[in-house]
Amino acid sequence: LETSSGASCEFAQLAGAVDADGLRTQIDELATFSDTPAPSVTRILYTENDISARTYIKDSMKSAGLTVREDAIGNIFGRWQGTEETSVVGTGSHVDAIPYAGKYDGVVGVLGAIEAIRALRKVGFTPRRSLEVIMFTSEEPTRFGFGCLGSRAMAGSRNIYEILEGAMDKDNISFTEAARTAGYLKEGEDLKSVAVTNETYSGFVELHIEQGPTLENEGKGIAIGIITAIAAPASLKVDFKGDGGHAGAVLMPFRNDAGLAAAELAVAVEQHVLASGSIETVGTTGVMQIHPGAVNSIPREAHLEIDVRDIDEDRRDMVVEKIHQSAKDISNRRNVELQSFDVVNQDPPAQSGATIVEAATSASAELGFKSKHMISRAYHDSLFMSRITPTGMIFIPCHKGYSHRPDEYSSMEDIVRGVQSGGDVRALEDVR
Amino acid sequence: LETSSGASCEFAQLAGAVDADGLRTQIDELATFSDTPAPSVTRILYTENDISARTYIKDSMKSAGLTVREDAIGNIFGRWQGTEETSVVGTGSHVDAIPYAGKYDGVVGVLGAIEAIRALRKVGFTPRRSLEVIMFTSEEPTRFGFGCLGSRAMAGSRNIYEILEGAMDKDNISFTEAARTAGYLKEGEDLKSVAVTNETYSGFVELHIEQGPTLENEGKGIAIGIITAIAAPASLKVDFKGDGGHAGAVLMPFRNDAGLAAAELAVAVEQHVLASGSIETVGTTGVMQIHPGAVNSIPREAHLEIDVRDIDEDRRDMVVEKIHQSAKDISNRRNVELQSFDVVNQDPPAQSGATIVEAATSASAELGFKSKHMISRAYHDSLFMSRITPTGMIFIPCHKGYSHRPDEYSSMEDIVRGVQSGGDVRALEDVR
Ligand SMILES: [Mn+2]
Ligand SMILES: [Mn+2]
Ligand SMILES: [Mn+2]
Ligand SMILES: [Mn+2]
Repeated sequence: LETSSGASCEFAQLAGAVDADGLRTQIDELATFSDTPAPSVTRILYTENDISARTYIKDSMKSAGLTVREDAIGNIFGRWQGTEETSVVGTGSHVDAIPYAGKYDGVVGVLGAIEAIRALRKVGFTPRRSLEVIMFTSEEPTRFGFGCLGSRAMAGSRNIYEILEGAMDKDNISFTEAARTAGYLKEGEDLKSVAVTNETYSGFVELHIEQGPTLENEGKGIAIGIITAIAAPASLKVDFKGDGGHAGAVLMPFRNDAGLAAAELAVAVEQHVLASGSIETVGTTGVMQIHPGAVNSIPREAHLEIDVRDIDEDRRDMVVEKIHQSAKDISNRRNVELQSFDVVNQDPPAQSGATIVEAATSASAELGFKSKHMISRAYHDSLFMSRITPTGMIFIPCHKGYSHRPDEYSSMEDIVRGVQSGGDVRALEDVR
Repeated sequence: LETSSGASCEFAQLAGAVDADGLRTQIDELATFSDTPAPSVTRILYTENDISARTYIKDSMKSAGLTVREDAIGNIFGRWQGTEETSVVGTGSHVDAIPYAGKYDGVVGVLGAIEAIRALRKVGFTPRRSLEVIMFTSEEPTRFGFGCLGSRAMAGSRNIYEILEGAMDKDNISFTEAARTAGYLKEGEDLKSVAVTNETYSGFVELHIEQGPTLENEGKGIAIGIITAIAAPASLKVDFKGDGGHAGAVLMPFRNDAGLAAAELAVAVEQHVLASGSIETVGTTGVMQIHPGAVNSIPREAHLEIDVRDIDEDRRDMVVEKIHQSAKDISNRRNVELQSFDVVNQDPPAQSGATIVEAATSASAELGFKSKHMISRAYHDSLFMSRITPTGMIFIPCHKGYSHRPDEYSSMEDIVRGVQSGGDVRALEDVR
């Protein structure tokens, strides 16, 4: 690859240049920045461990010869300057982790991209377009209740700046205060400065573990999933309020138990999802908190967070509407106040850029890997990048489809195959 | 009341001697020792605020001229020595408070008893039998999952010592370590030393807010409830475990959602209780925790704590058995592991001592208060004291029956009436 023409004869060279041991070491080292003990990883936006992980990523980018820059929300950019001043090829993912998650989700797409750059350097590739590795801020929704903060802000997603300015975490720390603590959003800085134009990137690709069992179930044949669309996620926050009281003293007819309202709604979420008629509809009550939470106290307040996804936006929105109706019915029947039913986000699904899908498909074929076109039901920063540039994703198998768990696992062989495929997509920068 | 004969002609004297303002001040001061902001009160066993409250109680006892003593578990005894060496008349309650509770539950029975002693002194009463005010350790189950630790240990309740030695709180702090931190259960001290014999007390009476609306609903006529029996409580801890996973990536048929198992069981608890056929059966799922608790993560673990009470032990045990059966059915149907189903306690109901009921009834009548014989569905230290001595309880009205809530409220008029009635029961020590 002495030119930027991406000639197929040099694919084997790139394959040999990826340092699997070095990448494994970095994945393991990054996993040590965690609020919970190994093997679990918990890394929440703007906390001490998140800041340490950011420093680690910036150091890794610098050691790969990239020029590092951060924006006001904390997206980190490592750029390999191309020979021509033109739009940039982007790649990357996130390194934040929900409570008790694993070490591969997101991380593979950031450290893998940096390693791909190292490999491209080793084989003597000189980029014409600049290549940029992006570590997005808070892909996970843990701290402020909705995810992809960094990529949403880059894409200038409607209302995102106003929402962030008003956002509070569970300890009543505002988004602005949290960002400042971590060294971002400094006095005089404006969140709107994070937005980029549709001309900034010529394309974006994200390498990610599948987080489902499809590729693994294909057997040894298929190593690479090429994403043609990302399912449409919606997330809801629901609060019920009753009167509470002593678990011994208040007779059943006089109760309005917020915990039971929550329990019924969680069961109703599953029923409405199953009634959609499509295997592609999924719904989850991932958060269910009751207050005061004592064995001898009738629950007075309940807070639920619900996630509904589908590749079909209308079908998903119908499920959301049914959940809302159930919440109202339960509230009436149980005389429990439905204090709030907030649709936190309800994003449309994304189609991958055709050029990226084609490039990834042919790169995998050149490398001798079998690939499969598939849909991502998980949420990714690519969903928002697709609004401003042709975007695609490369999936690699993950053990039993386990993700968001401490035993999340992808083999180094699969990770390296993914890095090679991704690296080649970027090398094919002239294709577009 | 110059002698200990409790002649009815001096009741009016005692009534005038109760210092309502002083008692109100003490109730308000004690409420400031709280882990949560006013008006809520949270005071958990052996924490800093619990220790501060204990110091406050000991100081109050001393200022009332009582001789203060503590046992190995932290029960506090304030004794007014009688003229004869004989068994002791006990009275008291607790001052610990569940999260976000109010300031009257338990407190009225401790500070009220000390005020009754002050009043008895003022009117020149000289006790023949010693009078002892008891502040029991951890009536509430918050920290170690079951309540009435102090009274259970005094009554030598089966297995209590072994259970406490093995008990751990949610932060994995052992009971022994927690007790030592608070200055109890010192090196060489044995929990068994807390037990008292059946000869120690000649009787026990506990003044308490009703925690239900019955007395208030009677209108202005009835000021005093006299408890003839305490309902039988059982408490359960249940743990479900599934596989968890990513809320977007795992399709519905491949899930085993521990949170939905928990939600279904909470709903089943209510169904089984309602099916008991008696208004006296109550059941509450007061704790429902799911792990990891993120909106985009399928719940992998769920922990429930369930309280079931009835005045009929067999009927209550039948409900517990049905809940166990539902837990097994849900586990099988959802392929979610039922990791544990523990019956933490399942105590028999208690009958009040006939002599105490009679004394309280006539004392109320002498004071000009109308009283009502009733049953306590709430759990009290009296349940365990009744195993070692004739025991009774005096209830006073509480606003709307609210308890275990920040807006728990009893008027000073009702509290003073309760203190007078209780004081007179103790003055009637010769009746037995
Ligand atoms: Mn994730
Ligand atoms: Mn991810
Ligand atoms: Mn209580
Ligand atoms: Mn109480």
